[in-house]
Amino acid sequence: MDNKRIIGIMGPGSGATDKDLETAFELGKLLAENDYYVLTGGRASGVMEAAMKGAKSAGGTTIGVLPSENGEDQSEFVDIPIKTGMGSARNNINVLTADVVIGVGIGPGTASEIALAIKAQKPILLLNQSPESISFFQKFGYEQLSISESLEEVLGIVDSFKSS
Amino acid sequence: MDNKRIIGIMGPGSGATDKDLETAFELGKLLAENDYYVLTGGRASGVMEAAMKGAKSAGGTTIGVLPSENGEDQSEFVDIPIKTGMGSARNNINVLTADVVIGVGIGPGTASEIALAIKAQKPILLLNQSPESISFFQKFGYEQLSISESLEEVLGIVDSFKSS
Amino acid sequence: MDNKRIIGIMGPGSGATDKDLETAFELGKLLAENDYYVLTGGRASGVMEAAMKGAKSAGGTTIGVLPSENGEDQSEFVDIPIKTGMGSARNNINVLTADVVIGVGIGPGTASEIALAIKAQKPILLLNQSPESISFFQKFGYEQLSISESLEEVLGIVDSFKSS
Amino acid sequence: MDNKRIIGIMGPGSGATDKDLETAFELGKLLAENDYYVLTGGRASGVMEAAMKGAKSAGGTTIGVLPSENGEDQSEFVDIPIKTGMGSARNNINVLTADVVIGVGIGPGTASEIALAIKAQKPILLLNQSPESISFFQKFGYEQLSISESLEEVLGIVDSFKSS
Repeated sequence: MDNKRIIGIMGPGSGATDKDLETAFELGKLLAENDYYVLTGGRASGVMEAAMKGAKSAGGTTIGVLPSENGEDQSEFVDIPIKTGMGSARNNINVLTADVVIGVGIGPGTASEIALAIKAQKPILLLNQSPESISFFQKFGYEQLSISESLEEVLGIVDSFKSS
Repeated sequence: MDNKRIIGIMGPGSGATDKDLETAFELGKLLAENDYYVLTGGRASGVMEAAMKGAKSAGGTTIGVLPSENGEDQSEFVDIPIKTGMGSARNNINVLTADVVIGVGIGPGTASEIALAIKAQKPILLLNQSPESISFFQKFGYEQLSISESLEEVLGIVDSFKSS
Repeated sequence: MDNKRIIGIMGPGSGATDKDLETAFELGKLLAENDYYVLTGGRASGVMEAAMKGAKSAGGTTIGVLPSENGEDQSEFVDIPIKTGMGSARNNINVLTADVVIGVGIGPGTASEIALAIKAQKPILLLNQSPESISFFQKFGYEQLSISESLEEVLGIVDSFKSS
Repeated sequence: MDNKRIIGIMGPGSGATDKDLETAFELGKLLAENDYYVLTGGRASGVMEAAMKGAKSAGGTTIGVLPSENGEDQSEFVDIPIKTGMGSARNNINVLTADVVIGVGIGPGTASEIALAIKAQKPILLLNQSPESISFFQKFGYEQLSISESLEEVLGIVDSFKSS
């Protein structure tokens, strides 16, 4: 009803690189500044936490879809904790709930989310990917997959999905 | 992070009585006025929609945990649609995510949510219940179950859980 | 493909009465003797375990739909453990997978399953219920709900659903 | 209790190649001959159906974990249909329930399952993969990932996990 779009930022937890964390923070901040909700897997780790910290630094609102049933794994930067109690099966809820799925870096959980986002026919944007990731995901021939080198391009891509 | 509590309002969809709808609207309004998030099953029907409409009438923020995967069943009064694609299995997410579960009226879905809320050890408040419902749920001997006759008592009960 | 029907036996875990356990054992045995699969929540507790023990005593095959993700809670009488990792949200899978849902005794989990079975329009048979349970569930006016006093009637009721 | 292990065969539905289908059939047959349960996503399509058809040709027992809630998408080669009503979120149940996960070919759903299997620390065997898939999954440095060129090696690999 409030017409704000939900952008999902997916990425590794403990396996995140410094560049992943920095990108996730800046991305969360940028999206919040542009009045998007930032959705992540909600845990106090890696890309999830960095993205939400960035969003909060710009006064945004964050949604964390947690694997736990009691919030024990919740980042302090989650405003709205959705407690699923479903472990990694919650990855599909992240994907279905996001209007656009952005992958920052890669881990097994991230890989499952990008793959599920293709299944769910969601717009996808990949950042900080290895050549192997890019080759792998491009091979599916999925039309709504974008690969970006910089945050400057992100808003243009996300907004193009918004207007569609 | 924003410290707002999430109150779940559960109740029948198409089977809701006029009194259920009126109670749900007033309850949603009251909770929004007192700065709670209002969470429901998110569909454009019955107690769910009435509660969210009430919350929006007071400028509140609503969370709808939808059974569908694409939002086709979404009420226009949902601010934050969580698209689970899980059908009635999402009832457990409603319950786990709510800090307090309030049942307004009764239907099979509502009954499952109240029962799951006992399993999950959540504070529960029941409104507009038949004698059969009250007898049934009281028989479990669950300590955090309150039954109320009027909305005047609701805030006191919800706030008591908040402070705990 | 093997045309065996799956009968779900739902009932309390640690809260089961002696009569519940005895009924569940005899029911599991009876269903296995009549070439049904016996499905339960799979845990090593109460009605679930008793029903599967009964089925195994007659050489039947048991399906246990577990809340855990690693089988830590699994009864030794489960042949086919389905590890959901979803906690109580797996109750809906029990119900959807069963061709007929039989409730033996009552607890909060059982109550959620009977309620979800009404939602899912499954044939339901209730055994060992208190007057409060019977009054509560009858109030929904659901046509495919049977209440039985003895196991003698069970096969007739289950078979009638099978042939439909 | 019957001590049969469950082997999950994952692979594309409509996007399966002829070689994928042939491999899946032979693999299902081989596993059934060696007294394993064959688990798939249960739909009447691609690798899932071919694997179960192979298992049934050898008198095996098949488990199909379906995305639907009513079995509308069920292959005729499923013996035990688990109706999840959860769409692609059921992929995590496939993975958790399988003692070993075998990927035959690749599609987005398969990719999500292999990734979730790494998350769940399951033994994984990949067949019929492109160089891009192999490079991508090997990059995670996951120790329990095997890549095989022929079915002759499969039993040795699967049995090694069984004995562990």
